[in-house]
Amino acid sequence: MNAHSVRKLFDAVRRGKLTPDDAVARLRHLPFEDLGFAKVDHHRALRAGFPEVILAQGKTARQVAEVFARLASHGTNVLATRASKMQYAAVTRREPGAEYRELARAIVLQQDRRKYGKGNIVVVSAGTSDIPVAEEAVATAEVMGNDVEHVYDVGVAGIHRLLASRATLSRARVVIVCAGMEGALPSVVGGLLRVPVIAVPTSVGYGASFEGLAALLGMLNSCASNVSVVNIDNGFGAGYVASLINRL
Amino acid sequence: MNAHSVRKLFDAVRRGKLTPDDAVARLRHLPFEDLGFAKVDHHRALRAGFPEVILAQGKTARQVAEVFARLASHGTNVLATRASKMQYAAVTRREPGAEYRELARAIVLQQDRRKYGKGNIVVVSAGTSDIPVAEEAVATAEVMGNDVEHVYDVGVAGIHRLLASRATLSRARVVIVCAGMEGALPSVVGGLLRVPVIAVPTSVGYGASFEGLAALLGMLNSCASNVSVVNIDNGFGAGYVASLINRL
Amino acid sequence: MNAHSVRKLFDAVRRGKLTPDDAVARLRHLPFEDLGFAKVDHHRALRAGFPEVILAQGKTARQVAEVFARLASHGTNVLATRASKMQYAAVTRREPGAEYRELARAIVLQQDRRKYGKGNIVVVSAGTSDIPVAEEAVATAEVMGNDVEHVYDVGVAGIHRLLASRATLSRARVVIVCAGMEGALPSVVGGLLRVPVIAVPTSVGYGASFEGLAALLGMLNSCASNVSVVNIDNGFGAGYVASLINRL
Amino acid sequence: MNAHSVRKLFDAVRRGKLTPDDAVARLRHLPFEDLGFAKVDHHRALRAGFPEVILAQGKTARQVAEVFARLASHGTNVLATRASKMQYAAVTRREPGAEYRELARAIVLQQDRRKYGKGNIVVVSAGTSDIPVAEEAVATAEVMGNDVEHVYDVGVAGIHRLLASRATLSRARVVIVCAGMEGALPSVVGGLLRVPVIAVPTSVGYGASFEGLAALLGMLNSCASNVSVVNIDNGFGAGYVASLINRL
Amino acid sequence: MNAHSVRKLFDAVRRGKLTPDDAVARLRHLPFEDLGFAKVDHHRALRAGFPEVILAQGKTARQVAEVFARLASHGTNVLATRASKMQYAAVTRREPGAEYRELARAIVLQQDRRKYGKGNIVVVSAGTSDIPVAEEAVATAEVMGNDVEHVYDVGVAGIHRLLASRATLSRARVVIVCAGMEGALPSVVGGLLRVPVIAVPTSVGYGASFEGLAALLGMLNSCASNVSVVNIDNGFGAGYVASLINRL
Amino acid sequence: MNAHSVRKLFDAVRRGKLTPDDAVARLRHLPFEDLGFAKVDHHRALRAGFPEVILAQGKTARQVAEVFARLASHGTNVLATRASKMQYAAVTRREPGAEYRELARAIVLQQDRRKYGKGNIVVVSAGTSDIPVAEEAVATAEVMGNDVEHVYDVGVAGIHRLLASRATLSRARVVIVCAGMEGALPSVVGGLLRVPVIAVPTSVGYGASFEGLAALLGMLNSCASNVSVVNIDNGFGAGYVASLINRL
Amino acid sequence: MNAHSVRKLFDAVRRGKLTPDDAVARLRHLPFEDLGFAKVDHHRALRAGFPEVILAQGKTARQVAEVFARLASHGTNVLATRASKMQYAAVTRREPGAEYRELARAIVLQQDRRKYGKGNIVVVSAGTSDIPVAEEAVATAEVMGNDVEHVYDVGVAGIHRLLASRATLSRARVVIVCAGMEGALPSVVGGLLRVPVIAVPTSVGYGASFEGLAALLGMLNSCASNVSVVNIDNGFGAGYVASLINRL
Amino acid sequence: MNAHSVRKLFDAVRRGKLTPDDAVARLRHLPFEDLGFAKVDHHRALRAGFPEVILAQGKTARQVAEVFARLASHGTNVLATRASKMQYAAVTRREPGAEYRELARAIVLQQDRRKYGKGNIVVVSAGTSDIPVAEEAVATAEVMGNDVEHVYDVGVAGIHRLLASRATLSRARVVIVCAGMEGALPSVVGGLLRVPVIAVPTSVGYGASFEGLAALLGMLNSCASNVSVVNIDNGFGAGYVASLINRL
Repeated sequence: MNAHSVRKLFDAVRRGKLTPDDAVARLRHLPFEDLGFAKVDHHRALRAGFPEVILAQGKTARQVAEVFARLASHGTNVLATRASKMQYAAVTRREPGAEYRELARAIVLQQDRRKYGKGNIVVVSAGTSDIPVAEEAVATAEVMGNDVEHVYDVGVAGIHRLLASRATLSRARVVIVCAGMEGALPSVVGGLLRVPVIAVPTSVGYGASFEGLAALLGMLNSCASNVSVVNIDNGFGAGYVASLINRL
Repeated sequence: MNAHSVRKLFDAVRRGKLTPDDAVARLRHLPFEDLGFAKVDHHRALRAGFPEVILAQGKTARQVAEVFARLASHGTNVLATRASKMQYAAVTRREPGAEYRELARAIVLQQDRRKYGKGNIVVVSAGTSDIPVAEEAVATAEVMGNDVEHVYDVGVAGIHRLLASRATLSRARVVIVCAGMEGALPSVVGGLLRVPVIAVPTSVGYGASFEGLAALLGMLNSCASNVSVVNIDNGFGAGYVASLINRL
Repeated sequence: MNAHSVRKLFDAVRRGKLTPDDAVARLRHLPFEDLGFAKVDHHRALRAGFPEVILAQGKTARQVAEVFARLASHGTNVLATRASKMQYAAVTRREPGAEYRELARAIVLQQDRRKYGKGNIVVVSAGTSDIPVAEEAVATAEVMGNDVEHVYDVGVAGIHRLLASRATLSRARVVIVCAGMEGALPSVVGGLLRVPVIAVPTSVGYGASFEGLAALLGMLNSCASNVSVVNIDNGFGAGYVASLINRL
Repeated sequence: MNAHSVRKLFDAVRRGKLTPDDAVARLRHLPFEDLGFAKVDHHRALRAGFPEVILAQGKTARQVAEVFARLASHGTNVLATRASKMQYAAVTRREPGAEYRELARAIVLQQDRRKYGKGNIVVVSAGTSDIPVAEEAVATAEVMGNDVEHVYDVGVAGIHRLLASRATLSRARVVIVCAGMEGALPSVVGGLLRVPVIAVPTSVGYGASFEGLAALLGMLNSCASNVSVVNIDNGFGAGYVASLINRL
Repeated sequence: MNAHSVRKLFDAVRRGKLTPDDAVARLRHLPFEDLGFAKVDHHRALRAGFPEVILAQGKTARQVAEVFARLASHGTNVLATRASKMQYAAVTRREPGAEYRELARAIVLQQDRRKYGKGNIVVVSAGTSDIPVAEEAVATAEVMGNDVEHVYDVGVAGIHRLLASRATLSRARVVIVCAGMEGALPSVVGGLLRVPVIAVPTSVGYGASFEGLAALLGMLNSCASNVSVVNIDNGFGAGYVASLINRL
Repeated sequence: MNAHSVRKLFDAVRRGKLTPDDAVARLRHLPFEDLGFAKVDHHRALRAGFPEVILAQGKTARQVAEVFARLASHGTNVLATRASKMQYAAVTRREPGAEYRELARAIVLQQDRRKYGKGNIVVVSAGTSDIPVAEEAVATAEVMGNDVEHVYDVGVAGIHRLLASRATLSRARVVIVCAGMEGALPSVVGGLLRVPVIAVPTSVGYGASFEGLAALLGMLNSCASNVSVVNIDNGFGAGYVASLINRL
Repeated sequence: MNAHSVRKLFDAVRRGKLTPDDAVARLRHLPFEDLGFAKVDHHRALRAGFPEVILAQGKTARQVAEVFARLASHGTNVLATRASKMQYAAVTRREPGAEYRELARAIVLQQDRRKYGKGNIVVVSAGTSDIPVAEEAVATAEVMGNDVEHVYDVGVAGIHRLLASRATLSRARVVIVCAGMEGALPSVVGGLLRVPVIAVPTSVGYGASFEGLAALLGMLNSCASNVSVVNIDNGFGAGYVASLINRL
Repeated sequence: MNAHSVRKLFDAVRRGKLTPDDAVARLRHLPFEDLGFAKVDHHRALRAGFPEVILAQGKTARQVAEVFARLASHGTNVLATRASKMQYAAVTRREPGAEYRELARAIVLQQDRRKYGKGNIVVVSAGTSDIPVAEEAVATAEVMGNDVEHVYDVGVAGIHRLLASRATLSRARVVIVCAGMEGALPSVVGGLLRVPVIAVPTSVGYGASFEGLAALLGMLNSCASNVSVVNIDNGFGAGYVASLINRL
């Protein structure tokens, strides 16, 4: 054991068998990883308000349920993304308090309902087909202790719909924008506001959308300077980044 | 000569040397292209109001001047695209009436000033860097006999600038939108209007704009249904298509 | 409520509590979106002859039927694209007048049979496999009040088939050309005619057609100047753009 | 009817109602396509030895059978590519002489067994997984009247296997090489021989083979000058081109 | 004029010619853009601490100098990115207080030295070749009123160099990570910290780095959840987003 | 037969019918491949410790079993990769000693348990989803006579997990690193060690991972000089290369 | 020396020191390459009518001249492709009979003027910008002993120009078609004729032509079955393949 | 200082102010990086035989000279890659023993001439244009203490040239293969040998070689199992990996 070997050094020093200088010298030659354990508690301390997260996709219902229950025992919130109803059924037998957010395909267990975010996160979607990704962002942000509002179906081809939502948008401390097809919405939203905008390209679209590539490139080339981008369909990542920003 | 060989068939029929049936049978076996001449005059008739066009890029100043002078002799308007000042200098010695549009990099000779377009063509650009492409569209549309207005620097990150130009936009019978970077402007313009929008992706941008690819994909995936697209930086093509539409 | 806050300004003016100049000044500072509702009726007025459109793909039969019925109540034509037979069965129970165009995979309800298009739209397809996309364009154009003709299976490898259809082509005010594989047909058609050509790349092809990418690039690089392009397989978009042009 | 209208012109000339000159002038203004029929017989004459070909993929068994029977009535050979066993079952009820080549997924009816090719076509495959594509090339070349030999499983990682087949290779007048993965075989074969090599990239491979793209690029960049390339998995095209060459 | 037409409405109300309700109704039907001017002053108010920014690339030295001087007259900080020494020479004649940051290729004029950022922004670079991009981020963040620290040349192939900088990293409220080649550094930094990480792919690399594409894809696929990405080489964008976050 | 024709030459020389010079001259003109058989035995001799390998994917259970049994009769180890349980069931009826490694999807028959590798091969995986690829590498390396250790789930976003495994890593003579998503792990591992690192990109990831392309590009651009790369998901190739290195 | 060691074997047999069987056995174990020299003369014999070819690009004028002179001494024709005028100047000092084909950028020395081709090769180009590539094909085919005709500037947007050349086309035994932009011409030409068509994509075009990629994909997806393709701008390769076919 | 703070802990323990357990607990909470220094000396020890390497490209002659001199003072070999003659001139003034390898564009200083490699490294190139990359690999391998042989210009289109070099190849403990165009050579070499093959794609080629992409994909898809790949044109990387393998 690592702690053990370090302890032996201190013992030797105390018993005068080793000078402090020699002890430092020896420590210097101990394999790096023997001290790797050192940060564990700090990490624990830093975790307050961070959910435990499971990527359910590709796991059996039973596996998800087992991991979910184990993580739930930590007392923090638990989030399983890209989860099926069948996986939820298995989870709920172990954790009756877990709820299933169908649109977001997420299983959520909220054991810690404190607010860690200082302001509002507003999640915007361009079309109705982008809503599953947007809802994954919503679920993530809520489970991380944020007040979340959403504005859906405000794509740029009907700019008046977006403008009609400016009141909601202006309440945001951070904005998440989910859009497929040409991925233009983050630029327009970014231009209207002075807060950070997290853009999520979605794989929604046909033909030359190339499974979200068109939207991704569009967002990376946004002419609005306050936009940064996460991976295609990565609602979870957007919700996570936005939550981090919102607790600053 | 083709007409000649056909005429000989008719002569033979008239002189009773060939029955009509035999003549048809022979005609059947004449090479296809012998009758290809038939449409030439019609084509000429259809050309009224169409400029003669030279792609100057890759040609010597002298070559451009020579072709330009020859085309000018037809009496129609002449347009040379992607032309340098040096090429213009050579042209102007032969055709003093030719003018150089520096921003558009176009040499224009207007000999026919009739209006063929029935309404306004409005050319929109997202940024100031897109203006050369937009100006090429303007020059093309004007040389084809259209009233042209333009609205520049109204990118989607400052949507109020675009909205402030709705009066001009609403006067358009056809709209051309030039945009680089994310190529989002055609979708927004398309959503505001009920006329055909010709989108021109420009190679303006950095990094992941990939020389106009991001804008191109964005425009092809436009969520506005009234948008069609031409090649990257193809201001000429957009001006040409818009002119065709405007004379319908 | 937005209207409410504006109304209070007018009230204050009427009661002499505010001069008109002050009221204008205040209005100037009201959030933009308070007036966002303003356009709704105008939009309605502009819609004559425009169908209500549903993208059926990805929706349940019931969802499609419900939306369809609601839109049908507006009295305009209704179009559902990429619809299955099962979705049609659900629709027809609510709207017995709706018909299913199997090749186009479209559900069509024609309540307004006026002609809005001034001339013919001709829809051309390169091969028989491109016909579903072509038929979607046909359905769209018809539902938007156009006379539509079609010329199918006239790919460029048998150029005589295309030439044999010149009579039909020459009647067109706008042409739509659907082609997969090398996407060469729009260039040839564009070269034969002097009207706008809307090119639709289709995902028809094998190997290096890369799901329509080869055709798309081919069309964007067309050497005919009267060609503009919509997204891969986007028959609806082509029909829509052509209809807009045809009512100019 | 086209021939009819032309015949009327000749009749009018014979009856002195029209001078030959006037007849030529009228012919000049007849729509181009009225004479398009002229080549039909020539085409027929040129077809000797060319099979009628059906792309079976995407058609119902019944459709394939019907078209197959109709084409068989011309007396030429008939080939259906990418055909299933079920489609064959339907065909064989109408054309009992048709055979199914399972590896090639081709239905073949040989009614004309003359040899049109002057020499041997040798079909080479890199791996056993490339054999279906190679067999499609074999079937095509045989049905077009060629003597065909094949050399399979001689990929470049075991160059001795290829060298052991030099006797067969050296008998070839044209060679077809099918290879997936890195697509290197055509270069090696091309370097060994002095006859035209038709390279067929196959979609065989994993990961970065990108469905045949790696093989395609490899073949296009072949350092052997006698290699030309057809589309990915296009065994039919290779067999067709090779047959054309072999009858020169 | 827009304000004028609104003013007439108020006048009519004051003179009793229009009820407030009617006035609201009319306003409802006024074109949207008539009120588009409204937000200008608010925008001004929101700008405190935001620099005026010029993209110098592609502009003449004189143009840059002119725009720079005009923006400087607003009293805010001014930043010109991708600027050459020659452009700086022209600027400094007009604005002697402007300084040139050679590594960042930026011209900076700091007229407002207040701190708007609440914490530290730490800018990290993987290699020395990434430093120009990193310095552009530093210049942007400083000009927007932030305390900035930097940690350079800590690429993942020498992980101990990065670990040795944990003290600096742990002082960050926001981190910017610039990396070319495989773009792996943001994932490692993201895993060490619990603050938002803005990743900037750089075009540094050879061969299959494809001008930054490899790094871009790497960062978008980061296995650390706190990473979002801006465009290739977009140090300005990263500095801007980080500054927005840091003033929350 | 080849040997036969060469033997006849020698006979003729012995019988004085041919001078040695003439025999050499004739040999010179014999087709190359007549001597191609020569190396067979050498190859056999070189094979010691090399398994016979079957790519089971795309073969029927029966085909796999048959080939497996035939290869097993050589007395060497046999490996079937990408094999299903059903294929294993068929194999085990013929070769009861064969075992199925479910995670690796590999069927393994070890008849030769000698160690050919001189040191340890350590197989590292970034995430749990990369384990199937890693296990294929493990199975391959073991079947080729190596001592294999593995370190799983040590992705770069939790660098302490990797550092905690330095003891294991430092025992490696060759390291295989399997990673999807951004593919950063080989660079970090490569930087920690001074032995060859074989990187295997996996198709694990979402959106812009593009089926392993992001990881592949990342690894090719590794800033660690001791990294070379095999194809996406090619655990077998990595195990094979590592085994070759380990027996040097 | 290889021949030497083989000769020793024969000597030993003659002198009775070795039985023929033992000699064969030893031969079996000689390294493969000892007999590799055997084919040299045959190769020489096969070369009649094949030019010696130098890729001049990237070589100094002096290097080109030196290699050129050495190859010229073989008495065959010599061809240097992608050669500059300066390189020609150096060559002509050594080989006064060499001529420079400026359009083709080729240096040609014809020492053997026999005709090896049995029929005509016709080289077709779509636009005037494709002529350099076409001329490289012409130069190659001529230097390999073919009668060559050409038809230039017959792009598909003016299909009548192509049809007007059917007489020339129909005289071809092999056709080469060079086209940039959408690369549609080979399909149309292929459809008109029943001879092999070699398609050469050129890098002519703008924007989304992506340096010839659009044309390349178009040609690979040709709907005409008699088309095969060589690399972008590879006029030499096309001329070479066509020459091989024409001497069959 | 880090060592300092640790030393204080030991002092406190010696002086009885802290129990060993408390000291361990405190250590546990020290920031990780305080102990990061520990490995430095070990690293030094591990470096024997490893050159110091400078990427000269993008650095001034003076910078290269300065770094070179500083590294030379360590007594190890020094290698500068992608260096110009001008940079060499500057280096040689400081380090007269440095030599310039023009083909490899490398500056080499050999101060340690011991052999670290146990066998031969053979470097193979497909064409003469690939030699600069091959020579960079040679220089790297030599500077790292290996015996290096090379076999150049043995591309797969002339397979006999490669076979003629089998003697040299069979002496290799590791092989490096550099090839552009279709990148087929590593597969053929890999198939001939049973040692690790490091493949280096080069950017040599035209058109669809896409700057080495075709060769890269070809090598990744190699059908020979003993091939792994480094980045395009990365001769240094290949030499480095091969050297590591050769000292095992």
